Parts: sequence; structure tokens; C-alpha cells
Amino acid sequence: MDYAQESLKKHYEWKGKLEVTPRASVDSKEALSLAYTPGVAQPCLEIQKDPSLSYALTRRWNMAAVITDGSAVLGLGDIGPEAGMPVMEGKCVLFKAFGDVDAVPLCVNTKDVDAFVETVYRISGSFGGINLEDISAPRCFEIERKLKEKCDIPIFHDDQHGTAIITLAGLLNALRLVGKQREEVRVVTSGAGAAAVSIVKLLLSAGFRHVTMCDRSGAIYAGRPGLNWIKEEMAQVTNLEKKAGTLADMLVGADVFIGVSAPGTVTTEMVKTMNKDAIVFACANPTPEIFPDEAKAGGAAVIATGRSDFPNQINNVLAFPGVFRGAFDVRASDINEAMKMAAAQALAHLVSDEELNPDYILPAAFDPRVKDAVAAAVAQAARKSGVAREDKR
Amino acid sequence: MDYAQESLKKHYEWKGKLEVTPRASVDSKEALSLAYTPGVAQPCLEIQKDPSLSYALTRRWNMAAVITDGSAVLGLGDIGPEAGMPVMEGKCVLFKAFGDVDAVPLCVNTKDVDAFVETVYRISGSFGGINLEDISAPRCFEIERKLKEKCDIPIFHDDQHGTAIITLAGLLNALRLVGKQREEVRVVTSGAGAAAVSIVKLLLSAGFRHVTMCDRSGAIYAGRPGLNWIKEEMAQVTNLEKKAGTLADMLVGADVFIGVSAPGTVTTEMVKTMNKDAIVFACANPTPEIFPDEAKAGGAAVIATGRSDFPNQINNVLAFPGVFRGAFDVRASDINEAMKMAAAQALAHLVSDEELNPDYILPAAFDPRVKDAVAAAVAQAARKSGVAREDKR
Repeated sequence: MDYAQESLKKHYEWKGKLEVTPRASVDSKEALSLAYTPGVAQPCLEIQKDPSLSYALTRRWNMAAVITDGSAVLGLGDIGPEAGMPVMEGKCVLFKAFGDVDAVPLCVNTKDVDAFVETVYRISGSFGGINLEDISAPRCFEIERKLKEKCDIPIFHDDQHGTAIITLAGLLNALRLVGKQREEVRVVTSGAGAAAVSIVKLLLSAGFRHVTMCDRSGAIYAGRPGLNWIKEEMAQVTNLEKKAGTLADMLVGADVFIGVSAPGTVTTEMVKTMNKDAIVFACANPTPEIFPDEAKAGGAAVIATGRSDFPNQINNVLAFPGVFRGAFDVRASDINEAMKMAAAQALAHLVSDEELNPDYILPAAFDPRVKDAVAAAVAQAARKSGVAREDKR
Repeated sequence: MDYAQESLKKHYEWKGKLEVTPRASVDSKEALSLAYTPGVAQPCLEIQKDPSLSYALTRRWNMAAVITDGSAVLGLGDIGPEAGMPVMEGKCVLFKAFGDVDAVPLCVNTKDVDAFVETVYRISGSFGGINLEDISAPRCFEIERKLKEKCDIPIFHDDQHGTAIITLAGLLNALRLVGKQREEVRVVTSGAGAAAVSIVKLLLSAGFRHVTMCDRSGAIYAGRPGLNWIKEEMAQVTNLEKKAGTLADMLVGADVFIGVSAPGTVTTEMVKTMNKDAIVFACANPTPEIFPDEAKAGGAAVIATGRSDFPNQINNVLAFPGVFRGAFDVRASDINEAMKMAAAQALAHLVSDEELNPDYILPAAFDPRVKDAVAAAVAQAARKSGVAREDKR
């Protein structure tokens, strides 16, 4: 199927992939007096007395905003806020379909970090959580950090953390399969953008110890000239031996390759230089760093990509609906590392020892167990880590 | 019925009066590939080439934001943004139920005019129009003016213009009933806030010539000490004889009283001093400036209030759904005076000569003809005044 043209046709037919529908009826004078004036004054006054009641008396408890500045939409780059909206609407559809979360798409027409932060902060009282989407690195890190400081609701940049959760889940199961320990394996990433940074941070939190990040110039190490602040920060906790060299150099003797970069950056020959039972996650989309058959030819034992037409898709839809569902269920003030870790572990555990095989390391996108398993794990982790505020009613 | 307690109970049951529902299905891999990646890239690219296609390929063509800062919610005053949300949600329900308009409620947590304006402007690309709500005067005037300058979508402060449209519609029919001419009648308002200012401006646009506004200190006239900028501006076009005095003084010999102020500011004795066949619109809510029976005892020929339990309710729900419907139908860039006037005239014309009587000068809130009549008139006025951009598909 020509997805591009068929999707365009469908978009013209849909005239928007979302609508806003009433849960309260206003079909009589009486109904109007309860949902609107004069009755509505009472819930307003209750919230004025106790602002946390906005979670019980309005939709806030279940309402997320999906917000972009259009600066890094899909693989299309900086196409502008309005042009990013079809993706944001699609994301909101997924939130509802896979997580029972109501989500509103918003595009913000500024590329200035502080202006973006101020804008999102000022409307944050309308929502139970904020899903940042398709914002270019390294701006996305600063935006997320500042918003987390200012807001008392979860701020979640899905391109970072959604991807990190699924990657960790897949990697845990791949290691189970090849019988290697996370503390011992050597991990090399290609890419140092939003996804790569979050993946590496989560891997380190999860106990991985030997991680080296590569960008277009090769291995990132402390003191390499020209590093931006986030790469400099990552260089403090990765590649502790400060090895310099190309991606090909780094892959020699590596156990795990994680690509969140560009098509064709890895060859069969490069995979051949990796350790036995190599794990190759080639997630560049739609064209991976290396195609599965090429990786297999190089001896890779487990291969994952970002595509639905190959086995083991690293698909964010496995994570963000359940993560928000869990966070919302306990009215979490944050989505922290513990909650992301819990989500990854829950996903990994959905694949039983009997089911686990090189072509099945992650549950399928439509596996009906995913949402509840992830949500329950995330909610529990939120309680344990002290960010749950639960529901008053 | 105790609306306050019953409404509170219902609000706890509703757990939000709105939800966001998908119009596109994502129940199969194929469906997912059309509504989301990879297919969704194509509509994104089309909008990048031609941003106006955001009206055809996303919900923007039908999507309004209902935005407040919580500074003047109902008659409750400055209760804060979160506490205003039950009203905003209710308004969004009315938009959908009465105008087939999708509307998203947003509260903005700043009282600074420029910060508010920047925030709304930066997200305006997500919407086809902005309905400002419950923002205190005189900030609301500056906010609206600045947003109209910056944005290329309709900016409509309903507390001003919705009220003005219904008031003009009712007044046109009241004058029809008593056989007086708009150019000749003497109009006195009590109140100089958001609604009063917009009412007076619309009356002047419509050809009324003798209008005097009163605030708590009495008649507003050019040069009166202590006037704020908006009252000073209104003093240039009203009370041209520069009469000073109390509201009671001004009502002597007046034909029309329009109250958008405070309970009990008008007495039967004051109505008695008005001209024969006096028209009294006492719209303070829930307690009017004077109750209908008291106004009638003073000799008033036509009486309207803001309440649904008396005849002739000045109810904004008669206007804003149809106004936005009409503006959206032709993708208007603005809601201008001509469109407001057209809406008022359309509403007035829905009451036939045979039906017209002192207890029926406005169609009922649930009159099914209202939306289409108002929308058609507004759309036509938009075309005539050059702000219609129509639909590409």
C-alpha cells in the first residue's frame, strides 16, 4: 500500500482525527442549570478552596496535553508547529485508544526555550500531565528540565523516555535470551540526540556499566573538542576509558548496538566484529542503521528495529499510554526514573520464558495486557518513590 | 432544586464534563500506519508546503479554545485559573451541543496582560478561533485588542460580545414592540465593565445615538476625574451632553435601561421617572438590578433579565455557538462588528410579528432554529466584510 497517499486521502476524509465530546448533557433547562450556570458556581468555589479538587471536579485527572514546537517531527525535521499537528492528533488518538487518556494536541509557535517553557507552564493547570513531542535536541533537554522544575504535574518527553523504556525492555529480554548480564555487556549507541541520551541514562540507572555513545564524529568522550553541553554531560558517565574512534572502532568487541541515528550507518562487516551473540537494535526510521538480514549475516543473535514489518518493533505505543495511565491513576506529580524502569520491567515480563525467542522479545503493539501491566507497575513505582498523590474521590 | 449542591454532586459523578474522542481508528497495524506513522508524514508535508491546509487535514477548522485567567468567573470574581475550569468545561459542552464546535478549555495562570497575550498567541496555531472567557475589565479589552492584532484567527471575548449581541437583539425587538426608533431613544446603562462597554459599542454601531453609561460613581462623562482609559474612551462617544449625576438622575426621561452591574441598583420609583413604555433589561446575575414585578410596578413595558426563570432571558448561549459556527464555516480571520450585528439581527428576526409580545422578545435557548440562523448571518457578514477565507476542500 502507498501509505503516504492513502493516509493523505484518509486525512482529508477525517477532517481531524479527534473531537471533543460532552460527558454532561445540556438538553433541558434543568440540565443546563447543573452543567452550567447557576449550578456550576459551586464546583468552582470548591476548587477555589482546595485547588487539588480540580482533579475530581474537572477532567484534569485524565487530561494530557501533547505539545510540540514542530522542530523535530518524525524524521522530517523542523517543519513548523502547524505541520506537526497531524502527528500530535495521531498521538492523542493513541493515548485514548491504548491508555483511556484524554489528550489535546497543541502546537507552540516559538523556538525559544524560555518562551516555550513559559507558555507550557502557564497552561499546565489545565492538565494532569504534559507529553512533549518532536522537539529537537539539545533544546528538548533544557525544556524538559525547566518544565519539571516549574510544574507539579508529570512532564514526559516521549521521544526520549518512551523510546528509552521500550529499548530497555527489549534489551533486558535480549540479554535473557543470550544469557549475558547487564553489568558486563558493552553497549555502543549511534546517535546522541533526544532518544539516545534518555536511553543511555535509563540503561545506567538500570545497572549497565559499559556504555559508549557515538555521534557523527565518532565516540563521545570527556574533553572531546566541540561537544555541546548535553554531550559533555553524557561524556562524564559513559565511555569511562575515554576511547576515541569511529563507530566501527567502537563496535569491535561490543555486545549491544543501539542505533537511534541515521540509515545505513552500520554494515554487516561491522556486526561481524562484535562479540558472539551480538544484539543489534537498529531503530532509525523508516530506514534502519542496518537491515535485519544484513545484521543476521554479520552474526547478530537478536535484532530489533523501529518498523512494524520486521520482528521486535521498538514501538513507543507500548509505553506512553500505560505510563500516563499509571501516573494519572495515582495522580503522580512526576514521571521519574523509577517509574520508567518499572514500565520497562513490566513490558519485559509480559514475554514468558516459553515465548521468548529471537523474533519475540517484546509484546506486540496490540497485546491487550500491555496497558494494565505497564500502568500497574508505574503506579506502584510512583507510590514507592513518593510522587503519588492518589485521588480524593 | 438546590442547584449548588445538586451540581456539585453531578460534577463528582461526571469526573469532567468533556472528553477527547478519536475520529480515526487505530485498531489494526494498517489503521495505525495511516493515522500515525509512517502514513502521517504526508499530511504533515502538505501542511508544511501550505499552512492553510491545517484547516483541511487537522481538526483546526472546527476547533476553538475557551480560555480564561480565572479573574472574573461568573459573579464570583477572581477565583483563579483552576477554579474557573468547571465554567470553561461547561462552555465547551455548550459549544458542541449548540454549535457543533469542538472546544478545549484552558486556564492560564498569569494575570499579566502581555504574558497572557503571548501565551494565547503562541498556541493559536492549534485552533480555528479563541473564545476568551471571564477575564476582568479593563484587562480584557487590552488582551482582546492585542490578540486581534497578533492572531489571524477570530478572537472573541464572549462576556463582552456574546452579551452585546443578545442585548442588541432583544432591544431591537423591544423597540419594535413599543414602536420607538433606535436613533431617538435615550439609553442608560448601569455598569461599565466588559459587557457594558461592548453593548454600548454595538449599540452605537447599530445607529443608537443617545447612550449614557453609569458606574458606581454615576454618569460617565468626558473629563470626569479618575476615569480609567476605557471609561475615558467611552466618554468620548457617549453622554455627549456631558451630564453629571447619579444613575437615578440619568434615568429620568430615559427610554431604555440596561443593567450589567449589581443587584438592586434600580428601584420601582426610578422606573417611574423613565419615559412611557420604558424598556428595562436588568441582567445582573443571579440577582437583577430590579426584579421584573418591581419594574412592571414602575410602568416598564418590556422587561428582560439574565435568568431562565423569568421571561426574556439575555442568554449568551443564543449567540456564541452560532457565531463561531458561522465564522468557522467560512474560515473567518476575525469576528468583527458587522458579524456581531448580523448575529443580533438574525436573532431578532426569529421572533415574528405575530409572536412578538412583552414576554417574548428573544427566541428560547433551545429553539432549534437559532444556530443555523445565526451561523448563516454571521457567515454572510464575514464574506461581505472581507474576512472569510472559505474552505479549500
